Amino acid sequence: MTDINDSSSPDTYPTDHRGLRLLGFDECLKRIAEAVVGRIGFSHDGEIVILPVNHVLDGMDIVFRTSWGSKLEVASAVSRAAFEVDGYDAGFATGWSVLVRGSVMLVDDAEDSRHLDEIPSRYWLPGDEDTFWVRIRPDEITGREIIRRVRT
Amino acid sequence: MTDINDSSSPDTYPTDHRGLRLLGFDECLKRIAEAVVGRIGFSHDGEIVILPVNHVLDGMDIVFRTSWGSKLEVASAVSRAAFEVDGYDAGFATGWSVLVRGSVMLVDDAEDSRHLDEIPSRYWLPGDEDTFWVRIRPDEITGREIIRRVRT
Repeated sequence: MTDINDSSSPDTYPTDHRGLRLLGFDECLKRIAEAVVGRIGFSHDGEIVILPVNHVLDGMDIVFRTSWGSKLEVASAVSRAAFEVDGYDAGFATGWSVLVRGSVMLVDDAEDSRHLDEIPSRYWLPGDEDTFWVRIRPDEITGREIIRRVRT
Repeated sequence: MTDINDSSSPDTYPTDHRGLRLLGFDECLKRIAEAVVGRIGFSHDGEIVILPVNHVLDGMDIVFRTSWGSKLEVASAVSRAAFEVDGYDAGFATGWSVLVRGSVMLVDDAEDSRHLDEIPSRYWLPGDEDTFWVRIRPDEITGREIIRRVRT
């Protein structure tokens, strides 16, 4: 039996109770760093919202520039959030995802904003007036991957 | 000035206050139907969770098969959820997303389960014992797209 995604034995990596391969912490950070688009999820007025963002890593924090509503709205409405990146290969019926749970902080310090402005990042939204940085400080980063095994 | 994504004038489609093109309802449903992977977001024990799923449309409901925890856990823990699909073109720095907000229902009716089993769908997780269908009934479906204009 061979594993098309991994040359090691299927028994050498940890799996969860559903048989999904657990991604290590460094692998999770690598996949977050490589993802062009990630998604922030938060609760707002009792409703869940999921929005794609062009993020970048600042240490282990996920940061992105946005123009949602106003700084005040973000600061008052959001405190906990999730952040997710994923990928898939439909041909092999495999996929993976990394989920971050943490606190959301509005960056309102001018020096910190300048520091973030200097990190290479993407910003695709039209116009860049009234944008500000948002920082997600992770409490937990977990990743899972579907490993397809070829039966012999 | 021409718009690379749309041959109509930039003024002929509605945009939100950030200049994002608003997708019509039928266009949102089409993009949900075409997406191979979508993401459900919900609140669980005060934390937001975002998980990718292989969904399919049943009318306007988003349905997917899962083996999360147990039926009982899903039924008791989740009542409101968001569902999101997105796509992007990094070369053009464009992207779009569709966000669904609605109620989550566990499908525990045998006839309804059989009906859903007959819809062509994907299921990539290892093993398919102990799976059950989950239905998201939308209250609101909205979509937005970044339109890149080429300056002349």
